[in-house]
Amino acid sequence: MDTPYRPQITHASRPLTFTVDARNERGEVLATEIAGEHPLTLYVDKREVVTLMTLGSAPEALAIGYLRNQRLVGSIEEIVAVQVDWEVNSVVVTTRNGLADLDGRMEKRTVTTGCGQGTVFGELMDEIDSIRLPDDVFITEAAFYSLMESVRRHDTVYKQAGAVHGCALASHSNAGAGILMFVEDVGRHNAVDAIAGQMWLDRIDGADKVFYTTGRLTSEMVIKCAQMGIPILVSRSGLTQMGYEVAQKVGITMLGRATGKHYLLFTGAHRFKREHTIETR
Amino acid sequence: MDTPYRPQITHASRPLTFTVDARNERGEVLATEIAGEHPLTLYVDKREVVTLMTLGSAPEALAIGYLRNQRLVGSIEEIVAVQVDWEVNSVVVTTRNGLADLDGRMEKRTVTTGCGQGTVFGELMDEIDSIRLPDDVFITEAAFYSLMESVRRHDTVYKQAGAVHGCALASHSNAGAGILMFVEDVGRHNAVDAIAGQMWLDRIDGADKVFYTTGRLTSEMVIKCAQMGIPILVSRSGLTQMGYEVAQKVGITMLGRATGKHYLLFTGAHRFKREHTIETR
Repeated sequence: MDTPYRPQITHASRPLTFTVDARNERGEVLATEIAGEHPLTLYVDKREVVTLMTLGSAPEALAIGYLRNQRLVGSIEEIVAVQVDWEVNSVVVTTRNGLADLDGRMEKRTVTTGCGQGTVFGELMDEIDSIRLPDDVFITEAAFYSLMESVRRHDTVYKQAGAVHGCALASHSNAGAGILMFVEDVGRHNAVDAIAGQMWLDRIDGADKVFYTTGRLTSEMVIKCAQMGIPILVSRSGLTQMGYEVAQKVGITMLGRATGKHYLLFTGAHRFKREHTIETR
Repeated sequence: MDTPYRPQITHASRPLTFTVDARNERGEVLATEIAGEHPLTLYVDKREVVTLMTLGSAPEALAIGYLRNQRLVGSIEEIVAVQVDWEVNSVVVTTRNGLADLDGRMEKRTVTTGCGQGTVFGELMDEIDSIRLPDDVFITEAAFYSLMESVRRHDTVYKQAGAVHGCALASHSNAGAGILMFVEDVGRHNAVDAIAGQMWLDRIDGADKVFYTTGRLTSEMVIKCAQMGIPILVSRSGLTQMGYEVAQKVGITMLGRATGKHYLLFTGAHRFKREHTIETR
């Protein structure tokens, strides 16, 4: 079998935490870890596209995922190289045939909710109607709890320093779930985009996966998950009205307030199999 | 005394929460409140500037504060009218003399950390050097704890529905603190911008105030607070490296992880007066 195509990429992550002094309420000076934050300017074929503020843990996947989720690149095959240079805080992407209609798309940028990168929102909403998520997959409650446990145990920048959001892509069977990727970033959309980029790099299909985020379920978060073809979305946080409406429209299975043994199943209940406890006398 | 100038504005807030059904881990279907989220397209002098996704609690102040914090308008006197129409999800701003260099500024938009509206970040960083925050003001620990208690008691959408960030502007004396404004939004920068807009409308100077946010202290959050002339910034959350660096550079007093009786004082310790407990035998 041929090895699947893979662009030339650097592997240039940054130190994720830094230590500074802080004084607490007892007057003690404590060495306190804080999350890194770096500007990263994305150039595509020598043209400046955007500057992202990022933790810098997966800058190549972030750049690829940004281009994917903004619909500026249609497939991983279009990308020839992705080169990050932290000396000048840049990521240089070379494409095979250039970007489609960059000007038109950049003009329509919308500032999306709170944690938004300014997405081509109008177009994304138009696309909703064409998204088809598989209905013949489901997650069991046991697999869901297994995912929650894996997330809890995962070694994170958040535990050390806070101020970041995390996203995970997980596989699942009837009995359990396993984290395939876990990305944290100072911006929650960066974390989602980095997962999208890594999925392209690793040729991972979303249909049988579950997506976990620590962030809120706003409209854009739900749309991105659906675009990646992932039918099940889980968040530790709550949701907004438009997140809910989009979830209903694309028919995604969405769970919020998921922590430990608690959750709220908002939409797409047909993909969530709750086990019934067998009562014994 | 003349009444200070005030633009003509609507007062068109939206319902802040909506109720949807969700099924919990015990199989119970619960009526669950979720936060509103609406697109609001900002037009200035008939030109479309940006679409913000917002909770919609203070859309007029949000539009004014967005123009203020993006440095598109230099003073409240330049704004003639601010008219929100939720029928078409628009806010129409009329200015006296048009916006300064809108094209140039929109081109330089940077996607800021996580919760960013895409600010003219390069220019903001340039401005840091010109910001002078007053050094002859301070907050006492008693006033700080009083602020924490006021925030805790404040009736919020967050308590009902989660998924929003809150910001408060507070006055303080040696003995206590009082909330002057409290704005929540699905985007934390919207909440900051709405406070900035309301400060302009109400002619409130930031020098003797304290700013509270539930959100993380990223670079842009610190810059916006400094630009509003507020020398003391308090967050329930953590901070990022660039937030810390900017705070040091502008000399702001910054407290993070502030909840109940705990806090971490990161920068600008000269403006924070910790009371010493008098030990009695």
